Amino acid sequence: MTKKMFASDNNSGIHPAIMEAIAQANDGHVPAYGSDLYTAAAIKKFKEHFGEESEVEFVFNGTGANVTGLKAMVRSHQAIICTDGAHINSDEGGAAEGFIGGKLLAVPSADGKLTVQGIERHLHNIGNQQRSQPKAVSISQCTELGTVYTIEEIKEITSYAHANGFYVHMDGARLSNAAAHLGCSLAEMTVDAGIDMLAFGGTKNGLMIGEAVVCFNKELASELKYIRKQGMQLGSKMRFLAAQFERLLTDGLWLDNARHANKMAGLLAEGLMKFEGISLTQPVESNAVFASMPKAQIEQLQEKHSFAVWNEAKNEIRLVTSFDTSMEDVESFLGDVRKSFS
Amino acid sequence: MTKKMFASDNNSGIHPAIMEAIAQANDGHVPAYGSDLYTAAAIKKFKEHFGEESEVEFVFNGTGANVTGLKAMVRSHQAIICTDGAHINSDEGGAAEGFIGGKLLAVPSADGKLTVQGIERHLHNIGNQQRSQPKAVSISQCTELGTVYTIEEIKEITSYAHANGFYVHMDGARLSNAAAHLGCSLAEMTVDAGIDMLAFGGTKNGLMIGEAVVCFNKELASELKYIRKQGMQLGSKMRFLAAQFERLLTDGLWLDNARHANKMAGLLAEGLMKFEGISLTQPVESNAVFASMPKAQIEQLQEKHSFAVWNEAKNEIRLVTSFDTSMEDVESFLGDVRKSFS
Amino acid sequence: MTKKMFASDNNSGIHPAIMEAIAQANDGHVPAYGSDLYTAAAIKKFKEHFGEESEVEFVFNGTGANVTGLKAMVRSHQAIICTDGAHINSDEGGAAEGFIGGKLLAVPSADGKLTVQGIERHLHNIGNQQRSQPKAVSISQCTELGTVYTIEEIKEITSYAHANGFYVHMDGARLSNAAAHLGCSLAEMTVDAGIDMLAFGGTKNGLMIGEAVVCFNKELASELKYIRKQGMQLGSKMRFLAAQFERLLTDGLWLDNARHANKMAGLLAEGLMKFEGISLTQPVESNAVFASMPKAQIEQLQEKHSFAVWNEAKNEIRLVTSFDTSMEDVESFLGDVRKSFS
Amino acid sequence: MTKKMFASDNNSGIHPAIMEAIAQANDGHVPAYGSDLYTAAAIKKFKEHFGEESEVEFVFNGTGANVTGLKAMVRSHQAIICTDGAHINSDEGGAAEGFIGGKLLAVPSADGKLTVQGIERHLHNIGNQQRSQPKAVSISQCTELGTVYTIEEIKEITSYAHANGFYVHMDGARLSNAAAHLGCSLAEMTVDAGIDMLAFGGTKNGLMIGEAVVCFNKELASELKYIRKQGMQLGSKMRFLAAQFERLLTDGLWLDNARHANKMAGLLAEGLMKFEGISLTQPVESNAVFASMPKAQIEQLQEKHSFAVWNEAKNEIRLVTSFDTSMEDVESFLGDVRKSFS
Repeated sequence: MTKKMFASDNNSGIHPAIMEAIAQANDGHVPAYGSDLYTAAAIKKFKEHFGEESEVEFVFNGTGANVTGLKAMVRSHQAIICTDGAHINSDEGGAAEGFIGGKLLAVPSADGKLTVQGIERHLHNIGNQQRSQPKAVSISQCTELGTVYTIEEIKEITSYAHANGFYVHMDGARLSNAAAHLGCSLAEMTVDAGIDMLAFGGTKNGLMIGEAVVCFNKELASELKYIRKQGMQLGSKMRFLAAQFERLLTDGLWLDNARHANKMAGLLAEGLMKFEGISLTQPVESNAVFASMPKAQIEQLQEKHSFAVWNEAKNEIRLVTSFDTSMEDVESFLGDVRKSFS
Repeated sequence: MTKKMFASDNNSGIHPAIMEAIAQANDGHVPAYGSDLYTAAAIKKFKEHFGEESEVEFVFNGTGANVTGLKAMVRSHQAIICTDGAHINSDEGGAAEGFIGGKLLAVPSADGKLTVQGIERHLHNIGNQQRSQPKAVSISQCTELGTVYTIEEIKEITSYAHANGFYVHMDGARLSNAAAHLGCSLAEMTVDAGIDMLAFGGTKNGLMIGEAVVCFNKELASELKYIRKQGMQLGSKMRFLAAQFERLLTDGLWLDNARHANKMAGLLAEGLMKFEGISLTQPVESNAVFASMPKAQIEQLQEKHSFAVWNEAKNEIRLVTSFDTSMEDVESFLGDVRKSFS
Repeated sequence: MTKKMFASDNNSGIHPAIMEAIAQANDGHVPAYGSDLYTAAAIKKFKEHFGEESEVEFVFNGTGANVTGLKAMVRSHQAIICTDGAHINSDEGGAAEGFIGGKLLAVPSADGKLTVQGIERHLHNIGNQQRSQPKAVSISQCTELGTVYTIEEIKEITSYAHANGFYVHMDGARLSNAAAHLGCSLAEMTVDAGIDMLAFGGTKNGLMIGEAVVCFNKELASELKYIRKQGMQLGSKMRFLAAQFERLLTDGLWLDNARHANKMAGLLAEGLMKFEGISLTQPVESNAVFASMPKAQIEQLQEKHSFAVWNEAKNEIRLVTSFDTSMEDVESFLGDVRKSFS
Repeated sequence: MTKKMFASDNNSGIHPAIMEAIAQANDGHVPAYGSDLYTAAAIKKFKEHFGEESEVEFVFNGTGANVTGLKAMVRSHQAIICTDGAHINSDEGGAAEGFIGGKLLAVPSADGKLTVQGIERHLHNIGNQQRSQPKAVSISQCTELGTVYTIEEIKEITSYAHANGFYVHMDGARLSNAAAHLGCSLAEMTVDAGIDMLAFGGTKNGLMIGEAVVCFNKELASELKYIRKQGMQLGSKMRFLAAQFERLLTDGLWLDNARHANKMAGLLAEGLMKFEGISLTQPVESNAVFASMPKAQIEQLQEKHSFAVWNEAKNEIRLVTSFDTSMEDVESFLGDVRKSFS
């Protein structure tokens, strides 16, 4: 058995059932670019989860999913409000600015969540031509800090945003983990909560490759496929993206994977909290644990384990679990923490 | 056995050996975004084929490969000279204009090839600020019409281009098929022939997904990885792109696949030429057959076979073979042609 | 008296009445960025000419006017159909591609005019995500070859375009010259003929600096001011752009200037046609004369006069007149032509 | 005599000597687009002030000048570090993001100045492809808050920036006012202090229209003219931009205008400070006065005077003087302040 890393859920592999689905889709020729039955079946699954009115476009990666969706929502003279730590703002190499040609308006956030108060900070000079006009809000569920918006919190944001004429985008790279935490359906957090556009993550939850743009707002749907293509996100052998998603959304695999990862994170957190000198720096609500511990311990652990030092100044580390993290992985890590303190 | 389509090599599936390679790479956790051993191994393979100095970046699709490479070569006020039928000009949804913000200068071409004379047409107003300045030339090997540049033809273009201060890009979505036709190495047509930047195709030659940007010009290499990321082409579970390429470039799989596809196209062409009323409209030099036949026959064949009507006005069809096209597929098609004429 | 050039109407200066208007506007402080009375007055004049529903934005130059208007009409995955010699395609340094991020679809044209048949050539693959979707048509009145669309021709284009869901843009850098030729009002050729968006030229017709974007389609008007700003076309001391336009559109100055320039071009053409060995290569319908003459004569004339060799291969020259071209200028040129032939 | 506003130096008109220069340049025909003697003369003047090696391009407005210069310094995957209140970040309608396609990294600043410490905050993840790579620093002299960098402060920034491989841009919309304050030459604050690229302001200092991009770094100069054109900033009747600048830089007009404006601001500040209840919120170092006063007084003053409420929450107003602000204007304002307090 191979040891798992806590560096990122992107370090995990392909879930066996997903691998099986890819293999099964590998049968003869089918039309390319999405005109095939696998794609139709996968879209059908999405509609079961998100409603018949959903428009679904499969893309390659999270950046592609986010930027494709966002580009449908704003024009280049408009702006997108998000937290300063949002993936679209901090970790996507300027893809949003490059592809959209517009501005991100960042709001500092201690827990990764955007609030109505945060959005309000950018509600000035509305109608002033000298300023990029806010037109969309983007939130991440789960956030980049592993926290999870309650449905109420999401609705508060979407109500406020809509009242101001803004669309709301959700970066759901880890949406399944949020659902596992909240114990709600995928729809309850998204379409039912007023989200207009979703980037639904697959890669971090057991897929080899694949994310989906899911649009709940009819106004925004018609141009999506062209935006996807111009954004270099249209796969030719689409069936292999689709088949993965079709399987993920069948028999609750998406939820089982996410629940397991969350559970492993919970155990990890529980274990860590027992050590004096270690404290959690964020509530553990999904598959990530943020904790601070003495520098010496961090360095010792790094010799045997792979994980990120999130904030060097604060000796804060980030541990991410995934669908394939095992109890043994968790225990092995906690065991080494124990040794490091002894 | 499933019948194969002649609509596109994109309709084919995953070669079994590639599937196997994906499965083998699915082992535990490895670092994401290309810092893994699979990626290292695949890059090593590329260097064996293209030379130690090659810079390699894996991307998702052909549009991504082309546009990433091109963006490294020109700034937005500069222009790229290509044929009017070039994929970057006609079939990529404006990705080049969108991502680069610059202009494509198209040259009409009957056989899909660009010539020095064609490039020359755009060599006016050099230094005139009112005009997008040509800075790169892009050619496709094989061309969109299935034809193949000789090494001599490529060198003629690269010499002329370099003499004028232009970089040369090659869209090699089907480069392996060209190598199979010319009986030369991958390097001979590219780095040795003066190409600066290559989009090397995998998907059409047996991969599930994956293309590679291969840069031979040191001046252009350093920013490539950032351009890839901003272009939404950086895969997180990179090992699965890499493992496919590593396998493709091992034991001549790339060449076997391409040779087989070319051979099937050759047989198809040979068979078609026997029919009075059918004539080839392009020389068959790779895995595509362009032929004209009476409209009635086309319509009859469409009932049982999937292929593209390339030019309706000319009753011209396009038949594309792939690594998995079988003799039976060819014979079945030719048999139905025969019936259509009887 | 200073000799005038025939190189371009851009070589002319400022009409005395316009100069006077600038001086008169130079009185104390007024609000910047268009919130002043001069701007209000100028917009009022535009509405008198183009109708109450017109939305007017002053910009700096023709490229700015064209690209601002076009950006309001298309998104980056859409395309604009124009002639290959259109200013937006050939002479604006890639501004359209850079600012819009989209594609221009060019149609060859011998007389500078676009036709329904020309537009039709690009009406394929509608709805195909792989292709930039045509969404706008741009025509130039007068064309870059000095020819003038009849109102009927414009209507034919706008009807066809609208029937296909396209907007129609007019590059009216020399619109006044067209009106002078057709003997119609500015509205008849534009808003009344179905034009959605106009770039109305001032600079070539006696202004120091200034062009106007005039929008006739309510759907396109609301974002124009933001597009202008992001396109770096918002002037701070707006009154000085506005005052020029207010004057130009008062007491028929725009028409007098254009008529005079056209008349001078007519005389020039008339004079040239008397020489065997000289032939007009385009009908003279505005303030430009395109003619071919022997190379020796061209070279001799270039010693004393400034004009453009339009097509060296064809020994074709372009002579442009302007509001300040005098009879003496024309006669001096014709006199030198005479000498060159003797 | 017309009352002047304190709303902005953009509300001022054209200095008489500049008007005279425009009129004098209005003589017959000259080549367009900068190939004329007026442009040559103006460039010569710039070289006298900024050194023979300077590359000068005239543009229309401050946004155009900033963005043209910045685009020469960075590619779209790179980032520009500036203060959050920088004009390029807050007041240019997303022009930088739109034209460059890249990211601005903002640093909060209480006095409008960027510091080495502020730049350092963004010096993480260098070489990490997931992040827009900082490549340029932009500072404003004077700042948007009317403060002025000392030459020493500028050098500290340029040294640090260059040591990190960054270029340094200066938004010098009010550079002359800074020179007047520091008592130094234009070169001492710019080329001699390590600035690579300057946007030199004319409009706010007595011109009708016109800014200049001045490049001091040979690496960045060659593509500037194409960038200007693609950015829609190339004027056809260039002589009229040039003639204004030629005059501005002759006989110290630039300095006289700036000194006068600064002096008026000084008197205004001096007068305001006498009132209990009014306090300056920024040091008065140029032609702007930032002050807080009771809301009731602000409202009373607004009835008779035009000025900006900078920060409503803090009851902070901004008063800007210009070359044509008179003692009477200052006294009238101060008189009304007095009344408002009585």
